[in-house]
This record gives sequence, C-alpha cells and structure tokens, in this order.
Amino acid sequence: MTEEEVRRRPGGRGARVRQAVLDAAVDALVEHGVTGFSFADVAARAEVNETSVYRRWRTRENLITDALLAVSDRRVPVPDTGSVREDLYAFATLVVEYLNSPLGGALARAAVITVEDPELAAAREEFWRSRIRSAGVMIERGVARGELRAGTNPRLALEALIAPLHSRALLTREPLDEDLPRALADLVLDGLGARDGGRAATA
Amino acid sequence: MTEEEVRRRPGGRGARVRQAVLDAAVDALVEHGVTGFSFADVAARAEVNETSVYRRWRTRENLITDALLAVSDRRVPVPDTGSVREDLYAFATLVVEYLNSPLGGALARAAVITVEDPELAAAREEFWRSRIRSAGVMIERGVARGELRAGTNPRLALEALIAPLHSRALLTREPLDEDLPRALADLVLDGLGARDGGRAATA
Repeated sequence: MTEEEVRRRPGGRGARVRQAVLDAAVDALVEHGVTGFSFADVAARAEVNETSVYRRWRTRENLITDALLAVSDRRVPVPDTGSVREDLYAFATLVVEYLNSPLGGALARAAVITVEDPELAAAREEFWRSRIRSAGVMIERGVARGELRAGTNPRLALEALIAPLHSRALLTREPLDEDLPRALADLVLDGLGARDGGRAATA
Repeated sequence: MTEEEVRRRPGGRGARVRQAVLDAAVDALVEHGVTGFSFADVAARAEVNETSVYRRWRTRENLITDALLAVSDRRVPVPDTGSVREDLYAFATLVVEYLNSPLGGALARAAVITVEDPELAAAREEFWRSRIRSAGVMIERGVARGELRAGTNPRLALEALIAPLHSRALLTREPLDEDLPRALADLVLDGLGARDGGRAATA
C-alpha cells in the first residue's frame, strides 16, 4: 500500500469528495467573498454534481461554515504543549501566520461580512462559536493543571488574546509583528501588573 | 448673553459650519457606508457649498476620519476617575453603549471597510491611531500614579480591552452584555491569575 493510499483511506471516496468541495468553497470565498458565493460555482470548481453538494450541505451557511472551520483546523490547530502559557503563545503565533498569509487575510475579510443577511450572519456566528469552543480546551487544561484559577472564563481569555490580532488585520491593517503573540499571551496571563491591592477578577 | 450664544461662541460661524459638515458626514456614512460617501452628498446635507467642503478637507479620507473622530470623542470620551481600573471600566462601558446604539453599530460596520481602497484604508488607520493615542493617556496616568508597571504598553492594553468588544459587535454580532466591561478591565489589569512563578510580561 503506497503512502498516498494510506493517506486517502479514512472515509474513502465520500471523504475525498467532501474535501474537494470544501477546498473549492475556500477558493470561491477567497475569489468572490461571501456575497458572491454559490453552490453552482463551488460544484463546478470541485467537478462535482451541484445536487450532491446541495444534498450534503443544504444551505450556503452550512457549506461556508464547514469550509472555514476546515481551513482553520488545518492552519491554526489548537496546540497542547503541557503549559498554558506556551499553548497561548503558540496559538497566537499560528493566528498571526494565518492572518499574514494571503489565504488567511482574504478569508478573515470574507468572514466579516458587512452585508445584512441572516443566513450569513448565522454562518459567521456558528464559525466563531465552534472555534472558541475548540480553542477553549487550552484554558480548561490550564485550570485542570492548576496553572489558572478555577472558574476562569475560557471565552473571554481567548477573545482578549485573539481579537487584537483580528482587529489589527481588519481595522488598522497593520503588519502583525512577531513580538505580538508573546506580548498578548503574557498580558492575558499576567495582566498589566496592577498594584491596587490585587483585587481579583470576578469573571 | 443667552446660553445659546455662549455655547456657540468658540469658533463662531466657521466652527458651526464645520460641525454641520461633520454631522452631515456621519449621516452620510450611516446611510451609504464608506463606499457611497461623496463630498457632493455631504455638502447637500449640510446645506453648504461643495467647494467650501472641498477647500477645508481636500480628501474624502480627511473628512471621514474627522467625522468618525468627532463622534467618538463626543460619544466615547476618555474618562479620568483617578483610578486606572475605574477608567478602563468606564471607557469599556462607553464603548459597549456606543456599539449597542444604532449609530455606533452602523459606524463600526462602515469603519471596517472591506473594499480595497488605499485612501479609505489610510482614513481607517488614522482614525484608529488617533483614538488609541488619546485613550492611551489612561494607561500613562496609571503608570504615573504607580498603579501600573513602568514601561507598560498602552496600545496593547487598550487593544486587549476594546478589540473583543468590536469583534463581538462585528464578527459574532452578539449583544454586548453589561458584565463585559468589568470582566475585560479586570482581565487586562490582573490577567488570568497564572501561577507559573509569576514570570512578568516583557512587553
């Protein structure tokens, strides 16, 4: 059995078709953004019948969400280094590399979706909910190891780490420099070193 | 002298015209977004000659930036409570109220500007640079009062406080609840309570 055959094994033909459609969906998003996204275009790019794309995903929302999640899982996997500080640092570094890449930058802009469309808004919300849920495991492991206070809010921590990277990429459009992941991970873990009696966060 | 006359005094007619144009520019941004923004439309709304608008601002970039800054300065003034924690809390609360308002929500979406246009990108950058500079004084006062470590990076602190609010408003489009400002201010000041030997932030 060749390496190629082994790699292709899991899921067989169904999985290959699924991956081809998701890859095509990503290409379509990069080229036309969310507003110009259609089943017909994706099916043509993937060389798959439009009805089978439709049968599997049903709505544009489902397909867009799946495609964005597949790219994010591959390009920004959630690290597990054994230390919450190193995990957050590695994760923020991957986000920077992703946002600095042409693909990541284009997808991040597509994901903002300024048009008002309930279906697309639902796709965006589902994407972020899912990403925050899977990345939250870094914080939960930190609590389990005793590195972080019990009751730490994983979502707020991840937002303080990641949102500044997205806002630089989308709002100020500045280059994301390589010191930023460490500085943000340290800020989220240690704070600014406030000295007003160490009043604890209540979140 | 009536109260109205006193209020109008600073700057006289020139200042009144300036304010009328900035108000009209905000209305135009809310209605058409950045891409449909024109001198002619703003001048008509302000009942001012288009050439005098052009003479004063020269580029759409300048006018958009000025209009956004005027609204932000008025709706989200930088607090000075005497405590960095209360300042950050009050500031984040104002940002939440602003983003939750129809005007603030519409302007935030307009300010994202997903189209590629160097002039508009420059406007957006100038807006954020200017806002971060003026809000940075909260952090600088905290350092001066000994509440924060010397060498604290004001920009990174403000981004960790404010970017999550913008990302919820723009990306996940969730309602921004009233616990969020306090939770974020505490996170930025205290961190997550990491216990790995208190390694200090190096930013």
